[in-house]
Amino acid sequence: MLEVELHVVLLAQRAAGRRHPLDVIAPVDRVGVVEHAALVKALARVSRVVEKRNTIPILSNVLLEVGQDSIHIKATDLDLEVIDVVPAQVAAKGATTVPAGLLHDLVRKVPPGSQITMEQNADTNTVVVKAGRFRSTLQALPPSDFPDLNSGEMTHTFALKGSDLHRLIQRVEFAISTEETRYYLNGIYFHTRQDGNRNTLRGVATDGHRLARIDLDLPEGATGMPGVIIPRKTVAEVDKLFSVGEQEVQIELSKAKIRFTSGDLVLTSKLIDGTFPDYDRVIPQNNERVLKVPRTDFSAAADRVATISSERGRAVKVSLTGGKVTLTVSNPDSGNAVDELDAEYTADDMEIGFNSRYLHEIVAQVQGDTLEINLADPGSPTLFKGSDTDALYVLMPMRV
Amino acid sequence: MLEVELHVVLLAQRAAGRRHPLDVIAPVDRVGVVEHAALVKALARVSRVVEKRNTIPILSNVLLEVGQDSIHIKATDLDLEVIDVVPAQVAAKGATTVPAGLLHDLVRKVPPGSQITMEQNADTNTVVVKAGRFRSTLQALPPSDFPDLNSGEMTHTFALKGSDLHRLIQRVEFAISTEETRYYLNGIYFHTRQDGNRNTLRGVATDGHRLARIDLDLPEGATGMPGVIIPRKTVAEVDKLFSVGEQEVQIELSKAKIRFTSGDLVLTSKLIDGTFPDYDRVIPQNNERVLKVPRTDFSAAADRVATISSERGRAVKVSLTGGKVTLTVSNPDSGNAVDELDAEYTADDMEIGFNSRYLHEIVAQVQGDTLEINLADPGSPTLFKGSDTDALYVLMPMRV
Repeated sequence: MLEVELHVVLLAQRAAGRRHPLDVIAPVDRVGVVEHAALVKALARVSRVVEKRNTIPILSNVLLEVGQDSIHIKATDLDLEVIDVVPAQVAAKGATTVPAGLLHDLVRKVPPGSQITMEQNADTNTVVVKAGRFRSTLQALPPSDFPDLNSGEMTHTFALKGSDLHRLIQRVEFAISTEETRYYLNGIYFHTRQDGNRNTLRGVATDGHRLARIDLDLPEGATGMPGVIIPRKTVAEVDKLFSVGEQEVQIELSKAKIRFTSGDLVLTSKLIDGTFPDYDRVIPQNNERVLKVPRTDFSAAADRVATISSERGRAVKVSLTGGKVTLTVSNPDSGNAVDELDAEYTADDMEIGFNSRYLHEIVAQVQGDTLEINLADPGSPTLFKGSDTDALYVLMPMRV
Repeated sequence: MLEVELHVVLLAQRAAGRRHPLDVIAPVDRVGVVEHAALVKALARVSRVVEKRNTIPILSNVLLEVGQDSIHIKATDLDLEVIDVVPAQVAAKGATTVPAGLLHDLVRKVPPGSQITMEQNADTNTVVVKAGRFRSTLQALPPSDFPDLNSGEMTHTFALKGSDLHRLIQRVEFAISTEETRYYLNGIYFHTRQDGNRNTLRGVATDGHRLARIDLDLPEGATGMPGVIIPRKTVAEVDKLFSVGEQEVQIELSKAKIRFTSGDLVLTSKLIDGTFPDYDRVIPQNNERVLKVPRTDFSAAADRVATISSERGRAVKVSLTGGKVTLTVSNPDSGNAVDELDAEYTADDMEIGFNSRYLHEIVAQVQGDTLEINLADPGSPTLFKGSDTDALYVLMPMRV
């Protein structure tokens, strides 16, 4: 059917006396005809994985694997690969690789609604992309050279709703360390826990200054799974690609790899090969001074006074006296700023300092109207909580 | 009246047992109480002029001059100054300077609708900004040190509608050179011209590769004005601040300075002290090959094929044969791309190359549905026109 259609198109073009300057290339294997919107979406999904600069040229490419009635599109950075599938009218099966960014840009710039034809020319090692009167010839690289993650056998399989996966990531992602030397902190530590009667799937991230922790009810199939550290880039991609609504995401994992699948979309990633530190001992158990403040007011006030911070010293001083919290920033170069809020606080007066950016990020992540802060003393880890009682945050104070 | 109001506020605070940590500073001259929205708007307008890095500290500040019932706010970079006025309830006249970015940020972060109080403390050389329970003490610098442009006497005065000023700038601004060594091209050349019976105010910008020209009917008062080169930064600020709707903008100028006034807002700028080249000879008069194409289709096609350009070579080849224009980009590293459009073209076949970015910028600026391109030969300047017959564009070709 496809052949007939294309044939008709070609005849029509000939009848109209049109000849494309590139029509001379031959022999041609027609790879397939795909819908513009589907191809744009798939390329957007997979090509974000491709690093801007690559020492290995084929890592800049996407692998196009043409099957019976679809094209599998795959991108990888050697640690992480994403595959998506677009339906296609296929003339001949085959495979090729072309520059990811270039193909994505070209296809994006084709008028919406166009039918896109891709033709592979094995002799010249090129792929011709056509849409209407537009055509582009791209240099291809051999598909046999395209790296594969070789994910091996997965030991555990379970499912999460997109929205739960999003919650699991969103609550803790900001606390992931960016310090390359402590590579075992460069991701979210997912593992199972038993808290009293509740079995949970827990995510923890920390950079040594702050820690974020979130618990979900343990999904069926996750029991006995190994604790794994999912790298930061993978976490970000998973959140972009899979964290949508109520749809189920299938998760498979082993000690070395993790895979997320939803519909045609498959993301496979290596895990960080390291030991996540014993975080339990930095989570305070007996911080008995309890402060409750309206969360957005507290956040706005902290942001306001932090305006005056210098690039180096970013400490906000939090002063607590009965019924009131005062936020102060002093910067010898530019001056100082103070704001205060009514608060629920009945313990002894105290003062404590926090890095204003860390404070801001935690307060932004805490859910609900009321922020609860549990304090011990100005030198000890402080606990932050909100309405999502499955999540908690620890922040180390600064000297002020 | 103000004193009474403030007094009431202070009494109320005392009654409620509140003491701000900064209340100890004294003696205090109350500068004024201003509306949040008005102050934010004025600071946004003036503080864009302030350069991020300054070797002279006071250039990071805004000058606040407190009059009877208003505050004049002024910022400068020594070449360009902007003044705006906000109404205020004033307790004592005076003047001070405080960091522009800091004040703007603080005021932006205060809850909308707040009344903002500013107090000057001459002893400590500080200004205290208050809004609700928020207060910030900022380091001040002496107003006597704040530089003044000393604009001298202006020789010509005329008025333009905001929309005409916008047109004058918008049509040609993109062609301003950024090459510091050819400083006389780093602005728009405004001058008067007589074309047949029509006297015009003309704006011209060029960077040696392309040229843009726009004519307006000469406004009353501009006759005999000197030709002036308005610097790029000034042009951009004027367009942001004054190019709105039908409201009149008053323009005063001399050989050395130009001033724009609209309501309370005044922008004064130095002019570029140089000679704009004789641009007439690069505007072709007899380009007899005329191409007419749908403008947005041409622009989209050029953008599409340019995707394949390398960073270095950005040439688009434009091939003309009866009834058709073909756009081609070849990049030895990545491949090639071709698109074609139906066009009105009856002259001999020809091929010509253009820098794709320059082509894109001109075609984006040309107005109307139809783009007209007047060509001579592949080595000569090419003319671009649209529906705004007061504007024209010249682009030098590239060898392809």
